[in-house]
Amino acid sequence: MDIIEKLQWRYATKKFDDKALIASNKICIIKEAFNLTATSYGMQPVSLLIIKDKALQQKLVKHSKNQEQVGQASHLLVFCISNINEDTITEYFDRVKTIRNTPNEILNPFKEYLLDSFSKKTPDEIKDYCIKQAYLALGNLLTVCAIEGIDACPMEGFEPSEYDELLSLKEKGLESVLIMPIGYRAKDDMFADFKKVRKEISESIIEM
Amino acid sequence: MDIIEKLQWRYATKKFDDKALIASNKICIIKEAFNLTATSYGMQPVSLLIIKDKALQQKLVKHSKNQEQVGQASHLLVFCISNINEDTITEYFDRVKTIRNTPNEILNPFKEYLLDSFSKKTPDEIKDYCIKQAYLALGNLLTVCAIEGIDACPMEGFEPSEYDELLSLKEKGLESVLIMPIGYRAKDDMFADFKKVRKEISESIIEM
Repeated sequence: MDIIEKLQWRYATKKFDDKALIASNKICIIKEAFNLTATSYGMQPVSLLIIKDKALQQKLVKHSKNQEQVGQASHLLVFCISNINEDTITEYFDRVKTIRNTPNEILNPFKEYLLDSFSKKTPDEIKDYCIKQAYLALGNLLTVCAIEGIDACPMEGFEPSEYDELLSLKEKGLESVLIMPIGYRAKDDMFADFKKVRKEISESIIEM
Repeated sequence: MDIIEKLQWRYATKKFDDKALIASNKICIIKEAFNLTATSYGMQPVSLLIIKDKALQQKLVKHSKNQEQVGQASHLLVFCISNINEDTITEYFDRVKTIRNTPNEILNPFKEYLLDSFSKKTPDEIKDYCIKQAYLALGNLLTVCAIEGIDACPMEGFEPSEYDELLSLKEKGLESVLIMPIGYRAKDDMFADFKKVRKEISESIIEM
């Protein structure tokens, strides 16, 4: 597989074929790949909502700057952040212990360090920290979609508070930060044939 | 290619084989893939430094919480943000015009919108905006490295101001925000055999 060809093939899809649905085995790949995303300290403060309810997607269009791809796409991914606090840090170390059988003597100093470090952060700092991990996960999934021949449109332009309300995210301890409709490009999406606009490599990369 | 197998193969490499260098054709893939990363509005406010100067890498170890992988790795990637201002927005639209030959009548309303939108942001807001794009690029490259069988260690733990000074980044209009040593795992990196710690998919993903 030529990864560069795949990355050149992808583009921010503006019009999806609303008849073309992603097969469930491909959705499983998206789910696995999301869950395997690297996150800072491995704490996974990002959850993924996968919506394939077309009526719900249609309701969300007006909270997405009326961008129709939110309603048309086979599935709508919503990247959400959760909180990091004493409970979630403790759960994380319990998970490490269960999976790796690591002794407490090894885990505890690191656990104490993280508990101390996060107790000193303001809620806004913790939120910023989590949001960055959501972008990392988006970067991973965008590439995975390209590899799997799935079209996607990563989007910052939506109203998180309206999404949170409509999807009852607060009750789930989540906040939406990014969305990405995925599916298959419509034959007449004129953006599909536009040349990619990128800096020259010599402008964006410095070798030392 | 099974992308899930590749993502399972990768881990945050703690010890690199300092004799194993990445071939230049692979570095070309990293460069192309970085430059193809999606960024908000396509403005690419992220640059990549690729360092393979071992003496320089050694100097950077002490500004990276003494994490030896910075010095051992075949190459050290430094993700840097640049600024977004009237000049860079204008350059972006000039680039679109040159590559796609889009008429000004079509570009100008969007250009005015972006100029207006960014003129209302504080320097800190613009910086945050750019940092998110750096995480997106990291997410892409981490997956690309896994596909190419290149080991990597994404790192937030370093001193950006020391990096900026040592690498003369300010003069280049850049600020370091993330680093990632890349290369090949040492045979005795005990972390290579550790089981991956992840939530259950049912904990990190909600389907609607």
